[in-house]
Amino acid sequence: MRQPFFFLLLFVSAQTLNAQQANNQNLIQYVHPFIGTEKMGHTYPGATVPFGMVQLSPETDTIPYEAHGKYNSAVYKYCAGYQYTDKTIVGFAHTHFSGTGHSDLGDLLIMPTAGALQLNPGTADKPETGFRSAFTHENESAAPNYYKVKLSDQNILAELTTSKRVGMHRYTYAKSEQAHIILDLVYGIYNYDDKNTWTYIRIENDSLLTGYRQTNGWARTRTVYFAIAFSKPFKSYGYKNFSSKQVYHGFWGKFDLSSNFPEIAGKQIRAYFDFDVKEGEQIKLKVALSPVSTEGALLNMQTEIPHWDFDKIKLQGQEEWNKELNKLNVETISKEEKITFYTSMYHALLAPTLYMDVDGKYKGLDEKIHVAKGFDNYTTFSLWDTYRALHPLLNIIQPKRNADMINSMLAHYDQSAWKMLPIWSHYANENWCMIGYHSASVIADAVIKNNIGFDAQHALDACVATARKKEYDGLEYYIQKGYVPEDKDGSSVSKTLEYAYDDWAIAQLAKKLNRMDIYNEFIQRSENYKNVFDPSVCYMRPKLNDGTFMKDFDALSTNSPGYIEGNSWNYSLYVPHQPDSLIRLMGGKKKFAQHLDSLFTMHLPDHYFAETEDISRDGIIGNYVHGNEPSHHAAYLFNWTHEPWKTQEKIRMILKQMYKISPDGLGGNDDCGQMSAWYIFSSLGFYPVAPGSDEYAIGSPSVTSASINLDNGKTFEIKVNDQSDKNVYVQKIVLNKQVLNRNVLKHSDITNGGTLIFYMGNKPLKN
Amino acid sequence: MRQPFFFLLLFVSAQTLNAQQANNQNLIQYVHPFIGTEKMGHTYPGATVPFGMVQLSPETDTIPYEAHGKYNSAVYKYCAGYQYTDKTIVGFAHTHFSGTGHSDLGDLLIMPTAGALQLNPGTADKPETGFRSAFTHENESAAPNYYKVKLSDQNILAELTTSKRVGMHRYTYAKSEQAHIILDLVYGIYNYDDKNTWTYIRIENDSLLTGYRQTNGWARTRTVYFAIAFSKPFKSYGYKNFSSKQVYHGFWGKFDLSSNFPEIAGKQIRAYFDFDVKEGEQIKLKVALSPVSTEGALLNMQTEIPHWDFDKIKLQGQEEWNKELNKLNVETISKEEKITFYTSMYHALLAPTLYMDVDGKYKGLDEKIHVAKGFDNYTTFSLWDTYRALHPLLNIIQPKRNADMINSMLAHYDQSAWKMLPIWSHYANENWCMIGYHSASVIADAVIKNNIGFDAQHALDACVATARKKEYDGLEYYIQKGYVPEDKDGSSVSKTLEYAYDDWAIAQLAKKLNRMDIYNEFIQRSENYKNVFDPSVCYMRPKLNDGTFMKDFDALSTNSPGYIEGNSWNYSLYVPHQPDSLIRLMGGKKKFAQHLDSLFTMHLPDHYFAETEDISRDGIIGNYVHGNEPSHHAAYLFNWTHEPWKTQEKIRMILKQMYKISPDGLGGNDDCGQMSAWYIFSSLGFYPVAPGSDEYAIGSPSVTSASINLDNGKTFEIKVNDQSDKNVYVQKIVLNKQVLNRNVLKHSDITNGGTLIFYMGNKPLKN
Repeated sequence: MRQPFFFLLLFVSAQTLNAQQANNQNLIQYVHPFIGTEKMGHTYPGATVPFGMVQLSPETDTIPYEAHGKYNSAVYKYCAGYQYTDKTIVGFAHTHFSGTGHSDLGDLLIMPTAGALQLNPGTADKPETGFRSAFTHENESAAPNYYKVKLSDQNILAELTTSKRVGMHRYTYAKSEQAHIILDLVYGIYNYDDKNTWTYIRIENDSLLTGYRQTNGWARTRTVYFAIAFSKPFKSYGYKNFSSKQVYHGFWGKFDLSSNFPEIAGKQIRAYFDFDVKEGEQIKLKVALSPVSTEGALLNMQTEIPHWDFDKIKLQGQEEWNKELNKLNVETISKEEKITFYTSMYHALLAPTLYMDVDGKYKGLDEKIHVAKGFDNYTTFSLWDTYRALHPLLNIIQPKRNADMINSMLAHYDQSAWKMLPIWSHYANENWCMIGYHSASVIADAVIKNNIGFDAQHALDACVATARKKEYDGLEYYIQKGYVPEDKDGSSVSKTLEYAYDDWAIAQLAKKLNRMDIYNEFIQRSENYKNVFDPSVCYMRPKLNDGTFMKDFDALSTNSPGYIEGNSWNYSLYVPHQPDSLIRLMGGKKKFAQHLDSLFTMHLPDHYFAETEDISRDGIIGNYVHGNEPSHHAAYLFNWTHEPWKTQEKIRMILKQMYKISPDGLGGNDDCGQMSAWYIFSSLGFYPVAPGSDEYAIGSPSVTSASINLDNGKTFEIKVNDQSDKNVYVQKIVLNKQVLNRNVLKHSDITNGGTLIFYMGNKPLKN
Repeated sequence: MRQPFFFLLLFVSAQTLNAQQANNQNLIQYVHPFIGTEKMGHTYPGATVPFGMVQLSPETDTIPYEAHGKYNSAVYKYCAGYQYTDKTIVGFAHTHFSGTGHSDLGDLLIMPTAGALQLNPGTADKPETGFRSAFTHENESAAPNYYKVKLSDQNILAELTTSKRVGMHRYTYAKSEQAHIILDLVYGIYNYDDKNTWTYIRIENDSLLTGYRQTNGWARTRTVYFAIAFSKPFKSYGYKNFSSKQVYHGFWGKFDLSSNFPEIAGKQIRAYFDFDVKEGEQIKLKVALSPVSTEGALLNMQTEIPHWDFDKIKLQGQEEWNKELNKLNVETISKEEKITFYTSMYHALLAPTLYMDVDGKYKGLDEKIHVAKGFDNYTTFSLWDTYRALHPLLNIIQPKRNADMINSMLAHYDQSAWKMLPIWSHYANENWCMIGYHSASVIADAVIKNNIGFDAQHALDACVATARKKEYDGLEYYIQKGYVPEDKDGSSVSKTLEYAYDDWAIAQLAKKLNRMDIYNEFIQRSENYKNVFDPSVCYMRPKLNDGTFMKDFDALSTNSPGYIEGNSWNYSLYVPHQPDSLIRLMGGKKKFAQHLDSLFTMHLPDHYFAETEDISRDGIIGNYVHGNEPSHHAAYLFNWTHEPWKTQEKIRMILKQMYKISPDGLGGNDDCGQMSAWYIFSSLGFYPVAPGSDEYAIGSPSVTSASINLDNGKTFEIKVNDQSDKNVYVQKIVLNKQVLNRNVLKHSDITNGGTLIFYMGNKPLKN
């Protein structure tokens, strides 16, 4: 913990929380939303409910227009809109990704101000030149579904909370005859001049607006509809269109546009609403979103928050958080670990996010309006990240939601012009980020684990159609030749390896569903990793269309051809479905273990680090890059050698080094909860090395005890004897009073309920 | 008639037309859609049905990008997409205004080509550099709901027809293995770089596309949804995005975008579809539009054209045209006059245009989806033009449609953020073009004439709310002071005069509905024209806020402050509701008649003409500007002097000089049928000088006989004895066998049915 920065200000009042259930502990006290908000974590500190459609959070900078279209570091820093080291806040926006390495959203920036109206944000070094305000962390606090900050320049206390689809603001003003609320539609995350394709505001009456923001961003075509209600009528209002390029405004000089003009449309609009306020007067806002229409937004508002009781909404959301956090009751050696654990839980329950109105309507990938029948529709599927541990975790603690996420993926498939499952499903868009077709893994994992709240046969068909889509990303070559040739399609090794794993997952799914023709096809494809293994260097290596390996090869370089977000050293370990076979390829268990050792102990020269994306120096150990995902299973691979105790010590090392409770406590992007899900599994003592299997590899728990409170009413207890920071080695495991003679846990072991006891020691058990 | 240019090629086959009704003559043979397509008429020659949602017509140029945002003459020429003197065609688009002086639309350009694929239109002087083609008028023909042209460069015969909401194309190819259909979403009328806010194409299957085009043009926020079906599956397809500014395309290099990519979105897209064709093979397209959704477009297509029978659709539309044209059966001295008459009828039945799907859904002014209940919803209300004669004409020959147009205006009012009736209603937008609030005139005229297929009380409330909207266009001053001060709001004389007339119309409406408080308020306002009359110069003259008249004054200048589309000389005659009072103001009947005489006989110096908008030299007589609207009633004002015979000779002169059957036969913009409606009334011998009154001023008929076939089953016959080009003076009028001792006709005279006989002579009847 680097800074003793925010504990004192947590506004969580335990006694206000409903504790009817025996296991309903007050766990939100352990959630520190600022973790990950500095440097590379890319989390946001604002208010939201589990998997909520609204993420209402402060923005600490505006991206300069010079950044047009360039994905520079300034843009990258603000993936979640907030950087802990910043000194000013420009306002509060309603949509945020948590932990992504690319960015979008930041819709509907709201900023309360007092004094002379300013419609420019101003600069961070001179906040007085605009509507932004300085703030200090002493005057700021964050908890699940509650964020609070004193805006120093404006002398306004800002508080934020949310329901699923509605953000609620409470602003406490000093006395002023010039109080304003600014609605900034220019602002956005990863903004550039032309990102807004269109925006619209309609003044419905003296305390209600509706409108939409339509953008061309990471989501190619995205529209957020909104309705905004004010607790107090505004006395006047106006706007300015900052677009110099808009040819038609369409008013022909018939009106004074600067004030009280009831309808506004354009690309660069900031609107303001004026009030007189008494000392201490509060103005509250309800900002409802909809993916469908302004009527949908109004319906969401009326249904979810038909009143103006801010504290009630805050409490409801916090009770919801407590309910979900209590799916896992853990005890830890230190309070810090408990904070890390429950903050990880919090981060793991943010995405995918709900994407439909209260009446079930949502916009589909086909840009048509659909009604979700029998399921909740979700978006924000960062599947290349989350198939690894997040969705497996949800199969345990959120099975219903995970099944609905798969229903959402199938709807995406049905609506897709390509007839493909999602790669990165993003607000009714496919943004195609990263590689593979890991929807298949998520689906297979759920079916194998008997969490089948969807049409499994249709899901298999969707997996197969996706995996056979030859137009996609080198697949035609992969299907023909058994590998992606680097001279035909880049990142060829990463793709070949991940396709092979996904194919294995499809095979498992097919077998379970008795579709043996499919099984045979895909189990064969699942061995394609062998085609890019070069025994002469003992690494996975890019192969060319003519069947020869590429001459130039650097196992440490991430930029070298063949790879993405990982170098060959890391990617060569990526055969999660057949570690035994990989180990044979790489020279047997002993040699493999040595190789694996060196991953953690070698020094990665600076010039190699420089080209490693998305992580800070804190995010790597040797050449093991925990801040990126491809090696998340790697430390568990010692289990397949003669030295499983090395898994145990590495896991404890990673748990300790890669997760801290400071704002910069995440060494890499949290990636929509994948980093956090890794923490949760690993701290409980097991991990899903190959989702689609019903087995978890045993590691080394860091908790002292845990209860997994399952939706089926059963509880799976984990007890850890002789737990300490030094006793990282598992000496014995007892499952339901019987010694466990395998280094895997079965999914049914968990879902049947029972007790798992780890006996720990400070020396490895080497036999 | 300047050119014997197109008669021979008319493809109207009389015997194919249904002639069940006695009065169902084949009248479409007299419609020459090319009239007005050269110079200032701004009509289009393509296919449409009466008031149809689709206007499918050739485009003969693309507006150069240099024209960005500048309303230059090159842009102005192409208000309807076609200029008769052009030598090339770039394709066929689906939406067009008829006769407007500003422009928009031109959605969804389709062009068939053969040979090497070209995705740029090329230039008019070198059509071979792009997909455009040369053509000649010898190989072109047009009739109601049918247009045909041979594309010389491509050796393709193109034929167009429509149903209400669907355009149908039939392309006959020579043999080719490189036949293409281009869908150009870059093209638009009054186009500029940034006009497309977004466009989208989705390939639904091998012969069906859906998508939309969203623009920021004269309509600030407009979206046209479409579905396009091909009669033959395309063998391949592709597209190019010509936008250099689009940051995100969103595909991450995962696909070969250049071909067979099933979904496309962006700002500057041209797509192509490839075919093999045999010699003489026809490829047909159905292009359905919707203001609501792609589902709506598909529904429109399936409902209106569930087959591929081009000739059937053509015939259905032509039967519909014949049915509507037969509402007026006229005989004329010359065939040319019959052509002028029925082409005027044709032009008068093009707008307002239907604006809803077959299920009644449409997009409202509030950008929400509405369902039109109990009426058909219309858009394209160019009310400053059409309140004068077009809507009065529709009250006679299309009463049901006119009532539905008023229902559409009331829906506009209900949805308006301003709570105002339409000024210029434009595809779910208000474009605020021109001045006044002439919806009031249209509503009052319908109610006074007992055409009340709408909620009249609500309509009066809407008129009053609109007329009291003090934020609008100088109205606050007008209400306070009785005139618009020129130093507060421009075009102040024109506005004051038109507001005063509209106020009179509201007063008439209120009186009819027994709302005498409203009557009193507005009948008082209706006299406000007196406040801008300056007896010292005997003209209407701009007044300042301090009550003094502006010093600088030039009665002939249209650019001089105080006026719009008319100079003081013309506008000073604009008191249509109280001509007697105006005549007294201007010095009595004799002096007024002399003044009126001079209007037609004086020579307008060139520098004054140069500043007169929207008309050619052919469009004026002396200083009387028939090509603009403010004086359309002027020639009838002699009726209020001792010299009504001067009305008769002037009307016959205007009928003869201002309307010709050549492409340049319209001396000014047809203005959505207003110019044509003037012709129809005047050639029948009467005209609605003050809509909102139940009286028509008598002029001099140019027809030899006419039957008005009313929807109530009655017929009003007009017979003209001793009609000739010289016998322009009315000697006697007999209505239902009784001599008519008034120079007005009552609306009830018409709707009761009966016979009106004009006795003509070559000498004025001066007593």
